[in-house]
Amino acid sequence: MSDTGRMLFDLFLLFAAGRAGGTAFALLRQPAVVGEIIAGIIIGPHLLGLIADSAIHDVFAELGVVFLLFIVGLEIQPRSLWQVGRHAVSVGALGMIFPFVGGYLLMRGLGWPLTEALFVGTALTATSVGITARVMSDLAALQTRVAQVILGAAVFDDILGMLVLAVVSGLAAGTLSGAQIGLLVGESIAFCVLAFVVGRQAVRHLSPRLSSFGEATGRDTVFALAMVLCFAFSALADLIGLAAIIGAFFAGIIFAEIPDAPRLRNSMQPIYEFLVPIFFVLIGVKVDLPNLLTLQALPLGLLITLVAILGKLIGCGLAALPLGKREALIIGVGMAPRGEVGIVVALMGLSRGVMSSAIYSEIILMSVLTSLLAPPALRALLTRPQPPAADAAGAPR
Amino acid sequence: MSDTGRMLFDLFLLFAAGRAGGTAFALLRQPAVVGEIIAGIIIGPHLLGLIADSAIHDVFAELGVVFLLFIVGLEIQPRSLWQVGRHAVSVGALGMIFPFVGGYLLMRGLGWPLTEALFVGTALTATSVGITARVMSDLAALQTRVAQVILGAAVFDDILGMLVLAVVSGLAAGTLSGAQIGLLVGESIAFCVLAFVVGRQAVRHLSPRLSSFGEATGRDTVFALAMVLCFAFSALADLIGLAAIIGAFFAGIIFAEIPDAPRLRNSMQPIYEFLVPIFFVLIGVKVDLPNLLTLQALPLGLLITLVAILGKLIGCGLAALPLGKREALIIGVGMAPRGEVGIVVALMGLSRGVMSSAIYSEIILMSVLTSLLAPPALRALLTRPQPPAADAAGAPR
Repeated sequence: MSDTGRMLFDLFLLFAAGRAGGTAFALLRQPAVVGEIIAGIIIGPHLLGLIADSAIHDVFAELGVVFLLFIVGLEIQPRSLWQVGRHAVSVGALGMIFPFVGGYLLMRGLGWPLTEALFVGTALTATSVGITARVMSDLAALQTRVAQVILGAAVFDDILGMLVLAVVSGLAAGTLSGAQIGLLVGESIAFCVLAFVVGRQAVRHLSPRLSSFGEATGRDTVFALAMVLCFAFSALADLIGLAAIIGAFFAGIIFAEIPDAPRLRNSMQPIYEFLVPIFFVLIGVKVDLPNLLTLQALPLGLLITLVAILGKLIGCGLAALPLGKREALIIGVGMAPRGEVGIVVALMGLSRGVMSSAIYSEIILMSVLTSLLAPPALRALLTRPQPPAADAAGAPR
Repeated sequence: MSDTGRMLFDLFLLFAAGRAGGTAFALLRQPAVVGEIIAGIIIGPHLLGLIADSAIHDVFAELGVVFLLFIVGLEIQPRSLWQVGRHAVSVGALGMIFPFVGGYLLMRGLGWPLTEALFVGTALTATSVGITARVMSDLAALQTRVAQVILGAAVFDDILGMLVLAVVSGLAAGTLSGAQIGLLVGESIAFCVLAFVVGRQAVRHLSPRLSSFGEATGRDTVFALAMVLCFAFSALADLIGLAAIIGAFFAGIIFAEIPDAPRLRNSMQPIYEFLVPIFFVLIGVKVDLPNLLTLQALPLGLLITLVAILGKLIGCGLAALPLGKREALIIGVGMAPRGEVGIVVALMGLSRGVMSSAIYSEIILMSVLTSLLAPPALRALLTRPQPPAADAAGAPR
């Protein structure tokens, strides 16, 4: 079989396994995303070995998560994000500080060196907005206030997390200057301004014209503009040292308020159905389950996972307490999955040689466990009937 | 910028250039596909140098052409393909024999060795169903009889062409046995039977059940089945030595007659709009225009191009003559573009070391020129008002 044939066979496997796992979990009334990750673990190189980890797969995974965040952005009204802004910032900030300090103290307390303690702390600050957004999207709950707070906080987290990662890996490599930190902070602020002020105004003015131009030429020009901006913003975010998905998310938000947004959402749906499950299957493919479940790795991994969950639950929950206890709990759980973000931090630490492969495996275990545990918990919390509010009229008995 | 950032920036460039070129040509009332190829030539490594040829791009190109052929297949009713079957087979056969003999005699006459003459002949047998299908699709003419004959003949060509290529490269490498030829022929027949008998029956019976199952679980299961079969058939076709796109085309045809086909076509549309222009831009990116336009390469290249066009015009035209002169002319022109198929043959000859890089460039020139010239000609022929038939009542003067 040629390289092309192998790629198409892999796509067949990834897509079929993802749909099978997702459908099985949906039938069990569990989040489809968990079924997709588990399907990936099963077909991956460490269990059935049907599929290997390859650079081509990373292309599909990256494309899948970029479209996921773009489409999630498309569901967010900038105005409503503004409204929850204050809560989102405090949830994001406390949700970074608690896990970072917790992870750092745990590792230092167990006698690990400074560098690895800092890296574990950094990995624990991460939030996988993808997984929570996917669960919310599956439950049609993206419009709720908790979802908006979580998404806002997760993006804030991602931006701040990238800064922390840059600082920590600079410290670890001993190559960091204050000027570089300043540059990264400045670029991040400039990017946000560019996206939300310039980009938003441009799209607001361009899209009605493009829409009528597209009707005249018989092609979907708004879709084309959306794709162009999605790729441009993602590449730009990556260029200045932020995650590409932040750019995609901002591009989505910009298009969320144009009159053509509902049609654009429909157009993005098939691309989502094609690429997003493949992304989650590939998260599973990267998991070396047999190695994670050894007696050597498991105890520390479980401890780190516990700190990861408690850190977000306490940090985010405290910050979200003004919204009510139930919402604070949902937000704490929703911020818990580390998913691909935790894995990316681990990969970066490993490739820069500042972290041992043992710690790498622990972070992977923590990322996988938080990603597998949070969705069912979130689903249970969101679908559980709300207790009647104190001031609501009671039903007649 | 990371690898991810570079990939996203390239996608931005490829997509934006393709849409810009395509729209400019559409406004000039020319086929968008030509504008996309030219956009690729302009941004490619040999002119502006904004983008390089890379393995990642090949992934997108391959995916684009697989979806293109799948979607073209979705527009074809197996019944109507059956009806034009006899014409398609004779158009395909004569459309291979004439260019093959013409190319072979030309090269031998100019004193080139046997191997290279055989390879040029083989490259001239190719038909790029993608380009003609795209022009027909842009003009909403896929349902016409000429389109059905061309598509049927092009698929027949592709299957036979792969066999010829296998035989010629086996001869050139001196490694061919009769048993291997027999195996390839047998596998090709088995694949067609599997696709059209087993696959068609399975989809016909499965899709209504999946459709109601999908409504119950809220997910588009027919879309999922279509993707799974598209990838599976493509990989299988590649595995047995046919082109992957033949598998995708067959998968599309199978789904064309299910009740859910219109909805499936709608779902495939955004994936088409995303990936297909990128495929055509990447055809342009592979073209080394400055090198092709040297005095050394140009004369022979133009001669080969002339033989390529005349071979298809005469061969296919003769075979299609029973359909009428005008249809025969359209079919001859529609079969002329060699596109990516010619380029693939050239690449294969080059990589197996049986062809000099000079001949490689000539074949690329021929592929590009036939691909650029055929679409405007086809468009002019298809949109020109038909002359009134002899028995039609004349308009009052």
